[in-house]
Amino acid sequence: MGFSVTVLGSNSALPTSERNPTAQVLEASGRFFLIDCGEGTQMQLRRNRVHFGRINHIFISHLHGDHVFGLPGLISTFGLLGRTKDLHIYAISDLEKLLTPLIDYFNRDLPFKVVYHPFIAERDELIYQDNLLEIKTIPLKHRVPTVGFLFREKCKLRKINKQACDFYDVPVKWLHRIKEGEDFVSENGTVIENMKLTLNPPPSVSYAFCTDTRVHDGLIRAVEGVDMLYHEATFLKDQTELAVRTFHSTAEQAARVANEANVGKLLLGHFSSRYRDLTPFLDEARDIFPNSFLAREGDSFDV
Amino acid sequence: MGFSVTVLGSNSALPTSERNPTAQVLEASGRFFLIDCGEGTQMQLRRNRVHFGRINHIFISHLHGDHVFGLPGLISTFGLLGRTKDLHIYAISDLEKLLTPLIDYFNRDLPFKVVYHPFIAERDELIYQDNLLEIKTIPLKHRVPTVGFLFREKCKLRKINKQACDFYDVPVKWLHRIKEGEDFVSENGTVIENMKLTLNPPPSVSYAFCTDTRVHDGLIRAVEGVDMLYHEATFLKDQTELAVRTFHSTAEQAARVANEANVGKLLLGHFSSRYRDLTPFLDEARDIFPNSFLAREGDSFDV
Repeated sequence: MGFSVTVLGSNSALPTSERNPTAQVLEASGRFFLIDCGEGTQMQLRRNRVHFGRINHIFISHLHGDHVFGLPGLISTFGLLGRTKDLHIYAISDLEKLLTPLIDYFNRDLPFKVVYHPFIAERDELIYQDNLLEIKTIPLKHRVPTVGFLFREKCKLRKINKQACDFYDVPVKWLHRIKEGEDFVSENGTVIENMKLTLNPPPSVSYAFCTDTRVHDGLIRAVEGVDMLYHEATFLKDQTELAVRTFHSTAEQAARVANEANVGKLLLGHFSSRYRDLTPFLDEARDIFPNSFLAREGDSFDV
Repeated sequence: MGFSVTVLGSNSALPTSERNPTAQVLEASGRFFLIDCGEGTQMQLRRNRVHFGRINHIFISHLHGDHVFGLPGLISTFGLLGRTKDLHIYAISDLEKLLTPLIDYFNRDLPFKVVYHPFIAERDELIYQDNLLEIKTIPLKHRVPTVGFLFREKCKLRKINKQACDFYDVPVKWLHRIKEGEDFVSENGTVIENMKLTLNPPPSVSYAFCTDTRVHDGLIRAVEGVDMLYHEATFLKDQTELAVRTFHSTAEQAARVANEANVGKLLLGHFSSRYRDLTPFLDEARDIFPNSFLAREGDSFDV
């Protein structure tokens, strides 16, 4: 079970002939999460062979068209394919008001339920959790209410140290309890501490998706130490003033966030359509944070 | 000044990784008309280098998502590009009710006006005309109110027969009146008939766009003699029953319409995503109507 991100769209508001508006699929321990859904996302899912039936949760960062205009088509297609499973959408509450009339008109007999999970963009919130994973919002600073999403595996159970268990004659029926953290108590009452019978758990992986935003301190704190950070880089540093004015970031600023937050790797995206060649983004970021990469349509990254 | 159709999307409701939902651009005497606007149309316009500023009129055949879900993104992009010219949209009146809340929310300061031209789908109507061209609706038979569009150049002026005008000593100042149809009257009162001084005008070109529909007699009459007919062919003839049930057509049926209506050429499209290889559509149609062609993304056809 991996933890990887596939880029479906890397461009900012004006799509180009080669770059789509924002969308990503995160595969986390066998679950598939769609993050943002710009126009053309359903075609991009097909091109990248993501099975539609595996998409059950969609996370929408903010209500600008280039992050949501793929939803009506995707929902219609799910309906035409006979989906019956609930589809969960996480966004600010306005989305439901905007989508409902469209779904009612264009998909009169939608065979599944769209379940909205509204959140308040101005504060961080735990918006999803299951036995393996939790997802929190990160308030961002954009022209409209906008959040990032922090995907984090829960602390995993410690691993059984098979050699130690053999040494202390631990019966098999105890292994589950030891994995859960209990000390072992033998039939004659001897107590063996859990730490002696187990190994450290595998590390919990985390991924932060942050677009669209100006740089701000709260963001840096929120993504501290994540394994991978997707940070928007709409412009190059020679357009810093424009970035600030439009509540976006430059590649340099994204790299500084990655550096200050001490993340594992940085993925840059949301490129302005004014740029055809993206290598200057990579150069600018790597000067500050060497482990930087470009989000490009169809590329997958292990987190 | 040509008269040509460029295919932006050839697929039916479920887009595939290679085929987009319906959209076409008709270039007629220097004007560009967008016909239907499925999801991804703005990217397809870019890929085919159609300048956004030349699109002033959009014709929507019916309100199924695969024919309209590209409109919000296209309108947003026009706004971001600073368009100021009115954008004219021709559709049944429901479209305005559905689009307005989206435009109001996502494009608060849209710098141009969207002008709706509602029509009644159940009757044929002249919905557009200028000095060169007229556009009429053709009522179709689908599950929701649906029309085709008939684009027809107006009768052109006769051409000056230069040799004859020289022979009869026609002064230059008369040429405009002769082109408009007047007889020539010389200074001594001699009348030379217009027909002797002019040649037949170039033919008036016509294009009919017909999707989605069952075959019906009214349609055949409406497209009688057009130079090019785009007719949907969602299925092959072995699925005729399914075609009838879903109010669609087969390639064979489309070819019969072309044959009975005595059109110049037939363009097939709106293929079901169940078909990957489209050559059977061409074979099936050409058995009945040899001058048949497949609509494929990016292909252009002179009408």
